[in-house]
Amino acid sequence: MPVKKICVVVTARPSYSRIKTALTAIKNHPNLELQLVIAGSALLGRYGNAVEFIEKDGFTVIDKVFMVLEGENPTSMAKTTGLGVMELANVFYKLQPDAVVTIADRFETIATSIAASYQNIPLVHIQGGEVTGNIDEKVRHANTKLADLHLVASEDAKQRVLKMGENPSMVFNTGCPSIDLADEIKNNSTLDFDPINKYGGVGSEINWKEEGYIVVMQHPVTTEYKSARKDVEETLKAVYELNIPTFWFWPNVDAGSDGTSGGIRSFREINKPQNIHFFKNMEPQDFLKLLTNSKCLIGNSSAGIRECSYLGVPVVNIGSRQNKRERGNNVLDTVYNKSEIIKSIRNRISAKNIVSENIYGDGKSGQRIANILAETDIKYYKTIMY
Amino acid sequence: MPVKKICVVVTARPSYSRIKTALTAIKNHPNLELQLVIAGSALLGRYGNAVEFIEKDGFTVIDKVFMVLEGENPTSMAKTTGLGVMELANVFYKLQPDAVVTIADRFETIATSIAASYQNIPLVHIQGGEVTGNIDEKVRHANTKLADLHLVASEDAKQRVLKMGENPSMVFNTGCPSIDLADEIKNNSTLDFDPINKYGGVGSEINWKEEGYIVVMQHPVTTEYKSARKDVEETLKAVYELNIPTFWFWPNVDAGSDGTSGGIRSFREINKPQNIHFFKNMEPQDFLKLLTNSKCLIGNSSAGIRECSYLGVPVVNIGSRQNKRERGNNVLDTVYNKSEIIKSIRNRISAKNIVSENIYGDGKSGQRIANILAETDIKYYKTIMY
Amino acid sequence: MPVKKICVVVTARPSYSRIKTALTAIKNHPNLELQLVIAGSALLGRYGNAVEFIEKDGFTVIDKVFMVLEGENPTSMAKTTGLGVMELANVFYKLQPDAVVTIADRFETIATSIAASYQNIPLVHIQGGEVTGNIDEKVRHANTKLADLHLVASEDAKQRVLKMGENPSMVFNTGCPSIDLADEIKNNSTLDFDPINKYGGVGSEINWKEEGYIVVMQHPVTTEYKSARKDVEETLKAVYELNIPTFWFWPNVDAGSDGTSGGIRSFREINKPQNIHFFKNMEPQDFLKLLTNSKCLIGNSSAGIRECSYLGVPVVNIGSRQNKRERGNNVLDTVYNKSEIIKSIRNRISAKNIVSENIYGDGKSGQRIANILAETDIKYYKTIMY
Amino acid sequence: MPVKKICVVVTARPSYSRIKTALTAIKNHPNLELQLVIAGSALLGRYGNAVEFIEKDGFTVIDKVFMVLEGENPTSMAKTTGLGVMELANVFYKLQPDAVVTIADRFETIATSIAASYQNIPLVHIQGGEVTGNIDEKVRHANTKLADLHLVASEDAKQRVLKMGENPSMVFNTGCPSIDLADEIKNNSTLDFDPINKYGGVGSEINWKEEGYIVVMQHPVTTEYKSARKDVEETLKAVYELNIPTFWFWPNVDAGSDGTSGGIRSFREINKPQNIHFFKNMEPQDFLKLLTNSKCLIGNSSAGIRECSYLGVPVVNIGSRQNKRERGNNVLDTVYNKSEIIKSIRNRISAKNIVSENIYGDGKSGQRIANILAETDIKYYKTIMY
Repeated sequence: MPVKKICVVVTARPSYSRIKTALTAIKNHPNLELQLVIAGSALLGRYGNAVEFIEKDGFTVIDKVFMVLEGENPTSMAKTTGLGVMELANVFYKLQPDAVVTIADRFETIATSIAASYQNIPLVHIQGGEVTGNIDEKVRHANTKLADLHLVASEDAKQRVLKMGENPSMVFNTGCPSIDLADEIKNNSTLDFDPINKYGGVGSEINWKEEGYIVVMQHPVTTEYKSARKDVEETLKAVYELNIPTFWFWPNVDAGSDGTSGGIRSFREINKPQNIHFFKNMEPQDFLKLLTNSKCLIGNSSAGIRECSYLGVPVVNIGSRQNKRERGNNVLDTVYNKSEIIKSIRNRISAKNIVSENIYGDGKSGQRIANILAETDIKYYKTIMY
Repeated sequence: MPVKKICVVVTARPSYSRIKTALTAIKNHPNLELQLVIAGSALLGRYGNAVEFIEKDGFTVIDKVFMVLEGENPTSMAKTTGLGVMELANVFYKLQPDAVVTIADRFETIATSIAASYQNIPLVHIQGGEVTGNIDEKVRHANTKLADLHLVASEDAKQRVLKMGENPSMVFNTGCPSIDLADEIKNNSTLDFDPINKYGGVGSEINWKEEGYIVVMQHPVTTEYKSARKDVEETLKAVYELNIPTFWFWPNVDAGSDGTSGGIRSFREINKPQNIHFFKNMEPQDFLKLLTNSKCLIGNSSAGIRECSYLGVPVVNIGSRQNKRERGNNVLDTVYNKSEIIKSIRNRISAKNIVSENIYGDGKSGQRIANILAETDIKYYKTIMY
Repeated sequence: MPVKKICVVVTARPSYSRIKTALTAIKNHPNLELQLVIAGSALLGRYGNAVEFIEKDGFTVIDKVFMVLEGENPTSMAKTTGLGVMELANVFYKLQPDAVVTIADRFETIATSIAASYQNIPLVHIQGGEVTGNIDEKVRHANTKLADLHLVASEDAKQRVLKMGENPSMVFNTGCPSIDLADEIKNNSTLDFDPINKYGGVGSEINWKEEGYIVVMQHPVTTEYKSARKDVEETLKAVYELNIPTFWFWPNVDAGSDGTSGGIRSFREINKPQNIHFFKNMEPQDFLKLLTNSKCLIGNSSAGIRECSYLGVPVVNIGSRQNKRERGNNVLDTVYNKSEIIKSIRNRISAKNIVSENIYGDGKSGQRIANILAETDIKYYKTIMY
Repeated sequence: MPVKKICVVVTARPSYSRIKTALTAIKNHPNLELQLVIAGSALLGRYGNAVEFIEKDGFTVIDKVFMVLEGENPTSMAKTTGLGVMELANVFYKLQPDAVVTIADRFETIATSIAASYQNIPLVHIQGGEVTGNIDEKVRHANTKLADLHLVASEDAKQRVLKMGENPSMVFNTGCPSIDLADEIKNNSTLDFDPINKYGGVGSEINWKEEGYIVVMQHPVTTEYKSARKDVEETLKAVYELNIPTFWFWPNVDAGSDGTSGGIRSFREINKPQNIHFFKNMEPQDFLKLLTNSKCLIGNSSAGIRECSYLGVPVVNIGSRQNKRERGNNVLDTVYNKSEIIKSIRNRISAKNIVSENIYGDGKSGQRIANILAETDIKYYKTIMY
């Protein structure tokens, strides 16, 4: 069996956690060769410089694609994507991979899908079939219709991809590689580092060691970017009033990033909150340890739906971003309203019966993905099943 | 009711025929304002300069978008699309339409879809739900997943769009506006012009008036562009051997255009075929008159499946390009093989019982489309129905 | 005499001050029509959002061009410029101006020059002929060779443009419009606003009212972007040690901006300097008032060379950025070394005999520029004089 | 001495002849490594597919850059250039050459200059300092101002580059490598192939063996592209009326190419000229042999000024394209007028005293260029000399 060249395109910090164990498994598989391309905000210091972590983890980056247009508005999102198509078309033309992997649903992932499928390179889509109800959902399903092989993260998602008319022999529920990372942590969950010592960040020296802490991660919701600032202010006010030691993570790039980031910056200048410390980013493993030892995760991160369900961490999920994704018993949904958020956090902190669930994987997804890539004959053409 | 601005993007000569009566109806509708954008190969002399016909038909072109990268290979197709996203993002940002219309399935139509949907502009897709089995099909279904309102051309197509999870209140079978043009011709089918006098072209002065004629239109099939030349040679040899007066139309732009065009050019230089006259393009109405008065249409044009079914014109459809599209009794399918093509043409020329069918419309699609655009509240967000 | 359409492209905050009075004069000239295009970092919040000031000043912006690629390294500078060419080509194609004006020497100004000259639109270059010794100088002289009319800011510059082979009938020493702004301030120099009240900013509440203050403005030098951080640290340490109340302005976008900005951010977090207040930007008039009332300007801003020479404000100019530009008696040059900077600042603060000079203009440049644009027959072709 | 990586960018068929012997000398130099990039129209079949000749000549192409926008108008020229900057920025970023070489004055060569100089890579310009009086001249001099090392083709050109303010230690008169090719031919000038047998082409089987022949090569002049068609018609009519066997070469890409090409195509269809045979292109050596054995070269090709001066071939140079370039005694200048062209051709065919001259080189330019590249310490920064 000849070695297959698998080109994976990572465009943002959170996508890396979603694929990391699969990257390792591809790299180590005797019949696969990994061609890792880092693009978009994963290259930028403003958004956490994921590429540094990736290289520190021992991966060789075969190409870097700078494609983010400044402007942080819907027009620049579209233009970033268009530029991404142009740049990635060059990259795939040179690498001539046997398959290209696009991850999930960020706006620029469709650039990967177009650049590969238009050049008759088989396209693999990771984590299709989920439902979130905004531009991300449109992008995710469009990726599904451009892709030839579908590696989804839950049974629910698999059924949805099949209903969309994909060939059953090309749809696999592999679970999510991010759960593989969570699995390692689950068996070794001690918080063995001091977050502020290790990651710096800005804001107060909070007393998390004695009082415990909560974690906040709130991203702008793309189709409502004007209200991003108002939304984050509700969360900020709630967390400020609760006065529990808090680790707060800056949002990643997206239209409206300025709304969310701007809201946070203003709030800091005016209120100088004594109970909040801010981080730009953290190595995925450390982030999961931080979550496992926290009282509660607040915001709209998909980590609350996926990893925290597996880890049994309480979550307050705010707003529509995670809309119809399958949830475990750990999640309490609420809206962008200070009092509601406070009430929900109190509920979660005192919840007793939160248990681990396997909805998004069993800890072996990365290896499963590599095996399917090695064993499946992926064509670059297909037709709808009905 | 305030006037809605409807921005329609036409990227190629054949797409114009697919939308022309709808453009007229939008332009004349009291509650709609037409913003007509011409882009891509529709602007280029090499591909028929559609923009000239469009302006002669009385439409005002609000913006022209040059976006075609030379190279005529899959890489330049992808880069053309990426550039289209960047350029159209600017155009929509300036025009601020209430809805954008993208047409059918050509590779660059997804540029329109991305540029609109990423900017939160409601997206209307014309002629989704059809099945053709190559990159066009991937693009068409991806357009469906990015679009908010679906105006499809057949009942079959409507069912397919619904199965893909679109909201039933947003899917309408309007029929195809190209059938509206066919309808006018059906009631007035005299060939009232001399094609060679009016359109020039190159090649022999064929005796079509006395002997009758056949028409050939063969496009390269994108995912097999290397074989485009071999394919067209089979058709050329068949038509040459049959020695019936023939009007042959050059293909429109696509990866492989050079394959098909190059094949035709070489064949001409070497064989100097006496029975073939070549045209670059023709006004849609004249083209339909030419078809109605022909013995048979040969090739892989969708006009054979759609307009010819309504007009009752015999068709030899070669190869996979129109794959699973619904067909009328007028079509005989065959493969790229000289003898098979000759046999099929003879069969169609002598067929007796070919009748008109309404599969792709009843002649009133343009007005129907305008009415739906005016009366439907189109949102820019949606979620899958299951 | 028919009205001439003059398209001016402003790509950054500082360029606006360099052209403002000319914009007003063009707008008010009976034979000229102003087409004002705002592009690049002038549109971005991170770099002072110049477009807001411009609109508040009563100018109509006819088009906005988002073109800045993130990355803040030489590659993204080049790509930003390439994208600028593509976007501005569209803009000029639509506006069909009678002449396009490009300003000075920022890297992206060559995009304006190419987009205009390649489309046979007469190109006017403002502030050619100066010497600065890095990529800016290459860009400035390349702009000169692409331009048809040259409006330079000093006699020295005029001689240089002529020596490069330009036609003497097309080279005018107009002086710099920034001196027009300085002229207004010179006659009305009271600091009639509280900078911190009006502009916010971050950092300490410094006691500038009683103790007086210095101003710092330091930009990264493009061809040495890696050392930008080290350079700014020397200045920071000098200013910190001097402990005089200081208003410090963030740099505008350029490769290395992260170096300079990052250096400032780190210094702030670590040293929490009590004597420095930071601003993102300021209306040009207010900025000049601030300078006029300051003890000294420190850094590498060209305002130190031009406006401050006219206003008679002491200046410590650090490093190579203003290299060979003509200087007045107000300027003391030094290098990036803490002790040297401290020594130079002390020297300037105590200097007695600093007088106003007219090197870069007499306060009437804007009107002079408008008159020349109206009266000169600008061709789009030329040939070298030797 | 470490090996220097020299990246040469060839963007068009004629540029290749201008650099070929230098490429060989760089490739063979012990202290140089050649990184050959082929871009733009040099990759396209429509413009002669230069890349095939280049690879057949034994050069390894390290990267191919598709960047030509269709449209053949000034706007697409500008956009092609902008795209070229973006693409070449990526290429140089990956190759990390020690110097980049840009050739002469075609519109897209400034893309090479910007992409290199903005990334602080030393830039070498071949054949600066010449005078042609249209957009090419603006581009050439702008290239000079961006370049760090200047390798010019004549003494005249050297003086001009020095006058523009370049450092004398960085300006060398190397002569033109195209003369090296001519030198080989001069010593071995037998026409040892049958042009029509070897290159095909279209048009009549002319009787060149017995009657002798003339050669025509006419390019559109960029800044006058609308009149390109009219111009070529004058030449066509003159050549048709003279009725001497003629080899005619299609123009290379440029705005207006359609004007010239379209004019030729129409003329052929209507007049079916029996004395003209058309070629797309020819290997440089064969082309020079063809010239050496011809009665006269007609048109506006720079080969008439350079190679033909060295070879002593009579030339009728029409119009402004070669404007102020130094000429030998072989050239007669005329205008776009049928009778003038006929008169001039007759004059040249009967001229007696045409001798070889060394104006543009002595046949050793390629090696001289390689040696200078190896021995010169090229910095990426400079400043004007006055």
